[in-house]
Amino acid sequence: MTEALVLLSGGLDSTVCATLAVQRFGRTNVRALSFTYGQKHAHWEWVAAGQVAANLKLVCLYDEAVGNLFPEDASTLMKQGAPVPEVSYHDIEGVSPTYVPFRNGTLLSIATIKALSVGCDLIYFGAHAEDAAGWAYPDCTPEFIGAMAAAIYVGTYHKVRLVAPLADKTKVDVIKLGLELSAPLHLTRSCYVDSPLSCGKCPTCRSRLEAFASLNMVDPIEYQKGETSA
Amino acid sequence: MTEALVLLSGGLDSTVCATLAVQRFGRTNVRALSFTYGQKHAHWEWVAAGQVAANLKLVCLYDEAVGNLFPEDASTLMKQGAPVPEVSYHDIEGVSPTYVPFRNGTLLSIATIKALSVGCDLIYFGAHAEDAAGWAYPDCTPEFIGAMAAAIYVGTYHKVRLVAPLADKTKVDVIKLGLELSAPLHLTRSCYVDSPLSCGKCPTCRSRLEAFASLNMVDPIEYQKGETSA
Repeated sequence: MTEALVLLSGGLDSTVCATLAVQRFGRTNVRALSFTYGQKHAHWEWVAAGQVAANLKLVCLYDEAVGNLFPEDASTLMKQGAPVPEVSYHDIEGVSPTYVPFRNGTLLSIATIKALSVGCDLIYFGAHAEDAAGWAYPDCTPEFIGAMAAAIYVGTYHKVRLVAPLADKTKVDVIKLGLELSAPLHLTRSCYVDSPLSCGKCPTCRSRLEAFASLNMVDPIEYQKGETSA
Repeated sequence: MTEALVLLSGGLDSTVCATLAVQRFGRTNVRALSFTYGQKHAHWEWVAAGQVAANLKLVCLYDEAVGNLFPEDASTLMKQGAPVPEVSYHDIEGVSPTYVPFRNGTLLSIATIKALSVGCDLIYFGAHAEDAAGWAYPDCTPEFIGAMAAAIYVGTYHKVRLVAPLADKTKVDVIKLGLELSAPLHLTRSCYVDSPLSCGKCPTCRSRLEAFASLNMVDPIEYQKGETSA
């Protein structure tokens, strides 16, 4: 029997990933793990992750606070007073200002400790193909995921495997899969800004708005007034 | 110019590893990183690491305290009241009671954050062949190290590499190399027990005592009375 630990930020990708895990393994075999690592929008991630976990009736949502591991000034996601750029990922070249140094390697390692501790044999990680495109996030690439999966499998006496079921999917594919699975997309929140309503302007808001628009759909979440592209 | 970050616990292997880094890159290009992760003998590790770092005149010794990441009851190294077994590694089968769940994956990930933060392009990790023998520590095997090295290299935009220069060496080889490099072996401490003097009975004390004995040498550190096998 597989017991899955899903990394759940409450964004679109991790919500679809969690819904897929529930469909595949049954909700009583799925636990979720949310991270507070110093991101300015942590509170809103936690609210969204909690609503998604409740909607999916997951067994458990862990909150792992690792606020002291990352240097605050290394990313606009964490640095106080540094605005998140209001651009599309398509317009970012080189190291993304929203890259947090080796975040995913670290969070996946901590997820591995948690998986061993609570008896999960699978970690579900919702990285998707557009995270990896143009090396925006090198720690979302298939090369990274494959290497981490090997390190985790070997380093846990073959007890834990890492799977990234969305790694080959575009944002549009992820939304389509979410709709097919009746994932609670209306409860998700992707925005990087520390504000109750999503901004509609940061890279991750733009990414989902563009994907819904290309499907001729309206993104089901509420944005700050006048900010949606739908 | 290479800037190396050496994981330094103050034990034999990491001390020889640090000395090798100094020889290869020059002491002004070597920084050390010590971890407090909840191990009961943390204080003595820190003392030994500090003495070694001072002896080698390293630029810096960082102390990273990550005490809340590992569940206390997962290892005899951490669990209060659980004695460290007084046996040789040769007599341990299956999961070692001194294995800390995915410790090295996690600590190497955190070391990667630190390397990016302070501008090091190389992480030196002192795992040696006997750590990996019989899968006592799966997170010291060449398979694990290779996978983590790939994850780190890819996940940092190719800015940081992981090297384990002792991975192919036995404990005897490590001591020989240490002697050749004039490493401060007399300042090292390997013991897992929370006590000022090394116990001479735990697996890691036995390992070094056996290695010195097979070289017809006396281990240069002080042990509790009547406890050395030399």
